[in-house]
Parts: sequence; C-alpha cells; structure tokens
Amino acid sequence: MSLLNIGVSCCCCLVLISCHYYQPISTSIGFAVVGYQLVDHLIPSTSQHFIKRGLHGKDLSKLNKPIIPETIGIIPSIVYIFILIIIIPFIFRNDSSTSFNINKLGLYLSCLLSLLCMIILGLIDDLFDIRWRHKFFLPFIASIPLLVVYYIDYSLTSILIPKFITQIWGSDSNSIDLGWVYYIYMGSISIFCPNSINILAGINGLEVGQTIIIGLLLLINDFYYLSIGNSTDLSYNIHSFSSCLLIPFMGVALSLFKYNKYPSKVFVGDTWCYFSGMVFAVVGISGHFAKTLMLFFIPQLFNFIYSIPQLFGLIPCPRHRLPKFNELDGLLYNSYTEYDKKPLKKCYYKIFTLLEKFKLIKLVKKDDLIVKSSNLTLINLILIWTGPVREDQLCYTIMLLQFLIGFIMLILRHTIVPILFGFDNSWNMLNRH
Amino acid sequence: MSLLNIGVSCCCCLVLISCHYYQPISTSIGFAVVGYQLVDHLIPSTSQHFIKRGLHGKDLSKLNKPIIPETIGIIPSIVYIFILIIIIPFIFRNDSSTSFNINKLGLYLSCLLSLLCMIILGLIDDLFDIRWRHKFFLPFIASIPLLVVYYIDYSLTSILIPKFITQIWGSDSNSIDLGWVYYIYMGSISIFCPNSINILAGINGLEVGQTIIIGLLLLINDFYYLSIGNSTDLSYNIHSFSSCLLIPFMGVALSLFKYNKYPSKVFVGDTWCYFSGMVFAVVGISGHFAKTLMLFFIPQLFNFIYSIPQLFGLIPCPRHRLPKFNELDGLLYNSYTEYDKKPLKKCYYKIFTLLEKFKLIKLVKKDDLIVKSSNLTLINLILIWTGPVREDQLCYTIMLLQFLIGFIMLILRHTIVPILFGFDNSWNMLNRH
Repeated sequence: MSLLNIGVSCCCCLVLISCHYYQPISTSIGFAVVGYQLVDHLIPSTSQHFIKRGLHGKDLSKLNKPIIPETIGIIPSIVYIFILIIIIPFIFRNDSSTSFNINKLGLYLSCLLSLLCMIILGLIDDLFDIRWRHKFFLPFIASIPLLVVYYIDYSLTSILIPKFITQIWGSDSNSIDLGWVYYIYMGSISIFCPNSINILAGINGLEVGQTIIIGLLLLINDFYYLSIGNSTDLSYNIHSFSSCLLIPFMGVALSLFKYNKYPSKVFVGDTWCYFSGMVFAVVGISGHFAKTLMLFFIPQLFNFIYSIPQLFGLIPCPRHRLPKFNELDGLLYNSYTEYDKKPLKKCYYKIFTLLEKFKLIKLVKKDDLIVKSSNLTLINLILIWTGPVREDQLCYTIMLLQFLIGFIMLILRHTIVPILFGFDNSWNMLNRH
Repeated sequence: MSLLNIGVSCCCCLVLISCHYYQPISTSIGFAVVGYQLVDHLIPSTSQHFIKRGLHGKDLSKLNKPIIPETIGIIPSIVYIFILIIIIPFIFRNDSSTSFNINKLGLYLSCLLSLLCMIILGLIDDLFDIRWRHKFFLPFIASIPLLVVYYIDYSLTSILIPKFITQIWGSDSNSIDLGWVYYIYMGSISIFCPNSINILAGINGLEVGQTIIIGLLLLINDFYYLSIGNSTDLSYNIHSFSSCLLIPFMGVALSLFKYNKYPSKVFVGDTWCYFSGMVFAVVGISGHFAKTLMLFFIPQLFNFIYSIPQLFGLIPCPRHRLPKFNELDGLLYNSYTEYDKKPLKKCYYKIFTLLEKFKLIKLVKKDDLIVKSSNLTLINLILIWTGPVREDQLCYTIMLLQFLIGFIMLILRHTIVPILFGFDNSWNMLNRH
C-alpha cells in the first residue's frame, strides 16, 4: 500500500464528497474509505517502532510463539478522531437543511473529547499497566466531557418505561424523570461497554471482530430509522448523527481487522477495546438510545456474568484464561482451572454438576471429585459446544453468533417493544423534548 | 503531600467556588489550586513508573549525571484538561449573565480538542522519536479542531492594520480581510508557539519557567482589559474567557516548576513544550489577539532567529548545544562548535568577527583562524554576557529578561499601538463583528 494509492483513493473520495456536498451520510462513507486506506498504510509502516519501544506480546496460540507488536489500536483510533474533526465543515452548517444544525456541534465536540480522553487513558494503561480496579473506572472519567455537555446543553433525564408498569401505579405518564440518577446510568453504560469488550478477548481477531458486529448492528438500526423517517424528523436527525459517528468507525475497524485477524500480524491492546467501547457508549448516550445499544451487547454481557465467579475470585482464576493451543493438530482446546491446591466448595460442586448437564461447563473428575473445570469465558463455552477448532473458525463462530443474537434483538426491538411501550420510544420521546 | 491534603484543599476550593458561583474568574482560581495540589501529588507518586517504562534521561549538568524521569509533562497536561472539563458547568450557563454564554461552548470545546490532540501527538513524539522535519508540523495538525470550529462558527478573518498604512493606498477601512490566508496565519502561530518553546530548552527549569512568564504576561494583559471594561463589553468577555483558560494553566505549571526547577527531579519532555505552546496559541487564536501574543514570544523568536545558522545547517550543529558543565566549580560555561574538520567559510568569518565586537558571539582563534565559536542559542548568549554562572541563576536570569521584555512590550502595546491603529484594536474590531 503506497502513498500513491492513498492519494488516488483520497481523490476518489473527494469526488464522492463533493457530489453530495453537505449530505452527511455519503460524506461519512467517503471519509470512511479514506480512513480505511490511511490505517492500511500506517499499520505496516509503523508497527516495527512499537516493537522497538517495548510494546509487543507473544502470540501463545501459534507454533513458534511469534513476537507481535501490541497497542496498535492507537493508530485507527487517532485516524478516526482526525476524520471526525476534518469532516466537521462538511456536515455542520448554519445555513443548509441537509446537514446538521450548528447547535449540535457542542454535543459532537464533546463526543470527540470523550473519545480522545479514552485514547489517552487507554494509552496510559497500555504503557504503565494500571491496576485492574483502577482501570475499570477509566471509561467513566473519559465520559465526563460528554456528560457535562449533556448536562448543560440538553438535560433530558427521562427514560421511557412500558405502559403496563406505569399502569400499576396508575400514572398517566409514559416516562419517569431519573434526575441525577440518569447521569449515573449514562456513566455506567460508559463503564460497561469498554470493559465488556475488553474481557471478551484472547483469540486472534475477536477484539476487533466483535466491534465490527456491534457497529454493523447499530448501523442497521440507524438505517431503519433513516428509511422510515424524513429529514425533518428529530429521530431521523438523531440517527443520521449516529451514522456519521459509526460509518468512519467501520472504515478504520475493518482496516484494523485485516491485520488483527488470524494469523494476527498486530495486537490491538487495551487502547482499542476501551476506545471502541467508548465509541458505542458515546453513540448511545448522545442519541439517547442506550437501552437499544445494550441489546447488541448481550454476548458481552453474558460473558461478563458467566465470568463473575472467576473475576470476583469465588473460584480460582488463572493468569490467562485463553483456550489451550495444541501444537500437534494446530487446534484450540478448552483451558481449565485446576483445584489441586484448594478443593472446590460443596455448593459449587452441585452448581457445576448441574451446569455440566446443560453443556455449560466441562468438568474433569477423579474419584467423584472435580479436579478441573473449564474456564468460565464465552470462548471456552463455544469450544465445549463445537469441540476443538482452529482459531479463525472459533472467532468467526463467535462473531456469527453475536450477529444473529443482535439481529433477533433488533427485530424484537421494532416489533414487540412498540407494543409494550405503546409507541416506538425515540420518536415520541424526543419529539416531546 | 498526602491524599488528605488534597481533600482539605479541594474543600477550601469548593467553598471559594460556591461563594462565587458562576463567577468564571474566581471559579478558575479555585480550580487552579486544585490543579496545583493534584499535580503536586501525582508527580512524586508516579515518576518511578516513567523510569520503569524507559522514559528517562541523564542530567548532564550535574556531578554524577543522575537518571531522571522524562515526559513528566504529560501529568500536568492531563490534569489541566480534566480541570477545564469539570469547570464547564460552573462557567457556562444558558441563564446567567455573569457566566459565559452557551454559544461560546463550541469554541471552548474545540480549544480542549486541540490541546488533547497536542498531548497525544507530543506523547507519540516522546515515545517514538519522530523525525525533526515531521514533528515540526505536529502542532499544526493539533490546531485543526480549533481552526475548523473557528471556520464554521466565527469566520472572522480580518486583521487590523495601522492607520498610516491604509492611508497609503487610500483605503477607508482599518482592517483587511485575509480570507483563507488568515487560517494559514493561525496555523503558523500554532506551529510557532510550541516549537519556539521547544528549542529554548536545555537547563533545569527553563522549559516550564518560560511558560510561566508568558502565562503571567498574558494574564496581566487580560486583567488590564477586565479592569477597564464592564461585563457587558465583548472585549471583557473575551479576556475573561482567556483568563479562564490561563489561570488553571498557571496552577499546574507552577506545580510542575516545583519539580523541574534546579536541581530537577523530573524532566518535562517534548509533551510539555508542545502542550504549553499550544495553550498559548489556542488562547491567542480563540481571543483573536494573536499579534499581542507574539509580543510575549520575543525571546523565543530571537532564540529561533539566532539559531537559524545552526538549525538550517549553514554552520555545523553539534548533537547537544547545552552550556558546558564544569565539574570543578559547578558552574555552566559556554559550549562551542568546532571547525577543526571543516573550516568556517570566509563570509561567516567577517560576520562572526563583527558579532564578536557587539558581544553577540564568543570566538576562539588560533593563528587568525576561527577554531571554535559559541553555540548560537539564547542560553549561550546570556553566558557570554554574564560569564560562568550556576544553572539556577542562568534560568532565573533568562526568565527575568523575558518578563522585562514582555512587560515593556505590554506597555507599548497599550500606549503606542492605539495611536498607530487609531484605536485599541480588539475593542472596536470585535464590537463591529
């Protein structure tokens, strides 16, 4: 990928952009292509510098355990931010109806600020290995710019609740005003998204792959609204805004995936997990559709809940919970936690035996005692169901599963939810504002 | 400095803030104290991690050349950004006349974005040692967010010129509209400020000391406007905005100076030079007083012009141009460029001999040939004038000189300039807009 190629594709994009001047979506697509090409050029040309600086890791699931540059996620993150900055004059105007109103600029800039804060904090984490209990809250700090601007510029702190619940206490209103609790709710979302992406990791391509799936599902949701509304609707505007944040993200993420997929040429580092999670949190918060966003995080949420016994130290947690690589056949097998030093408590014995019946855990017994149990991660669970597979197949299986769950949720969201709530929430809610 | 101390001083500040709720200046002072304390706590508690990560340098002007953590400038920079974020709800309101109008929020957030971009680029530079010709332009990239928002939100691209010049071509107007050239002008300022601070460096405390002096001079200028105007004036508002950016900066800079001054416990790295230069550029650009800003950069400008023969390779430039440390008396002496391999060209011989007469260079001759000449930096020049001095005296001499020049310029700015321009520029100019 030479600089000439970048030049050529940039020119193509400029044509695309100028044909649709002030059409936010097509402009974003143009810049997404630029982002893809830039990342595609920068990763191979800079990755050696990362190794030199000591930012590298070993790929444990390969034959010769090659050394691979780490923290490469910083490159697409920075490219993404610069694209979002350069795009501003194309999508914000005082005078044009097809582009965003300048009043939205404050919100947009605060989204960028939150993302930049997240990049810096992620980078600091990759550099200095911050303690787990500290880094858990880093995304909350990064979300402060967005929350602050939300507070002084919008202060919309109501959420909609289903009709049948409001009827229980005989209220007329379809929404409750959470007040300051709403800011805690938004802060929690910004903690959840990055961290849940961060713990569903460990095989080539999965860190980036899962963010591509979530981005795709969010875009499908956006385009649904764009297809049924017209450009004067508030919800059309909101989902057009959200697409403008997501389309360039998809550009840089796809380019990163090219290098991170099996066999990985680069590792993305915590920076990418935090950054991509924050992109989704920012999109959800600024568009006031955080609950819909959560639907696309079900696999991550499941992985988190499933991991709780190990994360919170209820049962032993080894340093790495990656699947085990077998050098003979090149396949990945379940990895196990061993109970040789400290036998498993009786209550867990019963739960684990029950879980084993439903194929939710794999146990190795000896004389009726549990000696080993499979590590509690979604990756290990999939391995229980599919048996040993190659790393790339495992990654694609999880991505496919994630897409299917998300897509089903999306359909339910637009069929059952309007019935439960009495209307499709973002429409009415935001029009009332 | 314990966490308790921070807590106590935070409480004091909260009292100060709440007493003057929505008074931007006193709120900024309160937060500046918080910033001072935070940086004062964070630097000693984190500096060992920087050394571990390989971010360290040798202090060449000390007896045993101790190893000192480098890139510490990142700490006050990040603290500063978070203060500017948290302060937002206190100084921006829709409904109060004493605080800033919410319309200014876009500009404010774009300032923050530019500063954050500068931090990231400075950090990348400190980590990966970017080539000189590339890093020269990094501040321009960081200024793009500010320029973009300036473009869509303000687009004020006129500058005032003295009356006698306009009279030459018989124009009625006191200003000329530079159009897109104005953006190049602003971009150049953002390149100049960080880089000129970066090359006036090399002795303990000077990197931070010079930024404290510039900040102080800018604040004096701001308070001059605040004292003569009233809160409904546009220029009052602009200089109040600028103070709100500068006061917390002074807080973190003073705290950093405590550790960076002779004998340095920490080195600040390029991050700080870039970041602080960008703070000034951002203040000047957003307040539309970039020309006044330049008055406070005269020592840096002189240092740059004086260095040109070495920077652009007209005469040899050694790797380091620091003054020479004499271990016997602990004083700093002039450092020299030697011409033993490549004799000095004839034209330079004449110029140098002339400069020597005015005590602007120090030459060592042998048989009527120049063998060595003092390195062309402001630091060396001061050493020619004062003779060998201790490192801290040299630093304070330069800071004092800088303050005196700046202060004289400030007086001229408010006495002669209004006569030349026919009025005090920012007042009329901005009121017209």
